[in-house]
Amino acid sequence: MDLKDYLKQRCQLVDQALERFLPPGGELPASLHGSMRYSVFAGGKRVRPVLLLAACEAVGGTVKSALPAACAMEMIHTYSLIHDDLPAMDDDDFRRGNPTNHKVFGEATAILAGDALLTEAFILLAGDGEGIDPAARLRVIHEIAYAAGSRGMVGGQMVDMESEGKEEIDLATLSYIHTHKTGALIRASVRAGAIIGGAGEERLALLSRYGEAIGLAFQIADDVLDVEGTTEELGKDAGSDQARGKATYPALVGLEASKARACELVDMALQALESFDDRAEPLRAIASYIVKRKS
Amino acid sequence: MDLKDYLKQRCQLVDQALERFLPPGGELPASLHGSMRYSVFAGGKRVRPVLLLAACEAVGGTVKSALPAACAMEMIHTYSLIHDDLPAMDDDDFRRGNPTNHKVFGEATAILAGDALLTEAFILLAGDGEGIDPAARLRVIHEIAYAAGSRGMVGGQMVDMESEGKEEIDLATLSYIHTHKTGALIRASVRAGAIIGGAGEERLALLSRYGEAIGLAFQIADDVLDVEGTTEELGKDAGSDQARGKATYPALVGLEASKARACELVDMALQALESFDDRAEPLRAIASYIVKRKS
Repeated sequence: MDLKDYLKQRCQLVDQALERFLPPGGELPASLHGSMRYSVFAGGKRVRPVLLLAACEAVGGTVKSALPAACAMEMIHTYSLIHDDLPAMDDDDFRRGNPTNHKVFGEATAILAGDALLTEAFILLAGDGEGIDPAARLRVIHEIAYAAGSRGMVGGQMVDMESEGKEEIDLATLSYIHTHKTGALIRASVRAGAIIGGAGEERLALLSRYGEAIGLAFQIADDVLDVEGTTEELGKDAGSDQARGKATYPALVGLEASKARACELVDMALQALESFDDRAEPLRAIASYIVKRKS
Repeated sequence: MDLKDYLKQRCQLVDQALERFLPPGGELPASLHGSMRYSVFAGGKRVRPVLLLAACEAVGGTVKSALPAACAMEMIHTYSLIHDDLPAMDDDDFRRGNPTNHKVFGEATAILAGDALLTEAFILLAGDGEGIDPAARLRVIHEIAYAAGSRGMVGGQMVDMESEGKEEIDLATLSYIHTHKTGALIRASVRAGAIIGGAGEERLALLSRYGEAIGLAFQIADDVLDVEGTTEELGKDAGSDQARGKATYPALVGLEASKARACELVDMALQALESFDDRAEPLRAIASYIVKRKS
């Protein structure tokens, strides 16, 4: 299969669905809805929603049934970026080559746009879900909320912030940050897609292993890119992690060992999918792509 | 019935349940969980959770079945206060007589604590819900999320901020702020309780009318208190709304007309409950209390 075509098609479906699911930009309060849309359509790679769709397809589910949850995932991811970029947090002026939300709309609106996107995700998850068993939908909401909360993504961001500028971050702390800040939501994307697709517990467990492995590989690859990539490729300042004393995998174990670890994790992810048929090809291709991407 | 006893007992149940449902303060990241708990247990009146329980009881439901949703409501309310108090928003140093969250924990932690409380609400709503029909639970999640989002509470806060310091706010704008910023969540509390209690559509519609009326009455009473109350009674600076040029009901229509309107709304709320039996007594008592309270 051609991953580029698959990604392109799925990204288009996600973008069209986001367009449909988000309140219109002109609807009052227009500044709020405009700000929400600005960040959602600022060129994200749609990694989480595509993973969710691919996991659903891998177990025989339909793309259509998984689109609301996929979009909810992207809204949660986008809200987290808006809040992370705030002056009180990472204080970033650019994201994906564009001015960050608070640079365009001001801090107050950026805070509220993040709040509203997080909330919108749950409106979507609890809204129209034709054909999916209500108990399964509740489980999906619980999985996603848990992964996004204080024991997941927000907890990871908290520890990341507390660690910034510290002299010595140990591997356990860095691992906590990685598995929580990015890993939890990636794992939840894969699991949510699998649950919507009707996976049994055994296949769900295998897909969780896949999700955990690529989640960590993704973050290590991100750290490596921050060292090796160019500012142009990244759409943000290359070396910015290092500059602000952020804990990264390469800083702790070295660049080569980081790359080797990422490849190892991708192998683990592929092993978890061994018993799956051709419908898991997109998931396999995404795993390999993670360590090859340039931005 | 004695409202004081009822409120006291229900508040205790809510506090005990919040204690149980929130991650322990010592759990990592401890600063985040400590910050979440600080604001949740900072002396709130528990208006929304008690309304939710009372509405559930009014239609024959049990307190136990409604406690998770009641606590979720208080978490959402608390998150909104933490974010509203931030320097980029209302920049308040005190809330209910205590230093605001960001004054104690710093801005970054306050933002994340708000984010985590909002998320925790949905973990709770989608988690253990023994005995409640899953489809009804999905409806409750949708009601609450919708009321909290850009077309509800967050939208109201956005327009409130945009209106601050403007020379002329018309009654339509003020009404938008009131019905969205506070009204939506109060209405949703009543509706969620009714749905959990198994209300049919007719009684649900009546309780919505009740919720809308007391939601607006509550906000007008709040505005009146800001003018008439003492700083000691309020736990925040009396007259603070006026001082920062916030649009209020008394500022627009006058103090006496505001009080009259609040009483009229309470009458409307009581009328909506006419066909309900004694189990609606707490709801009736709460409606009357709203215009009599001092803080």
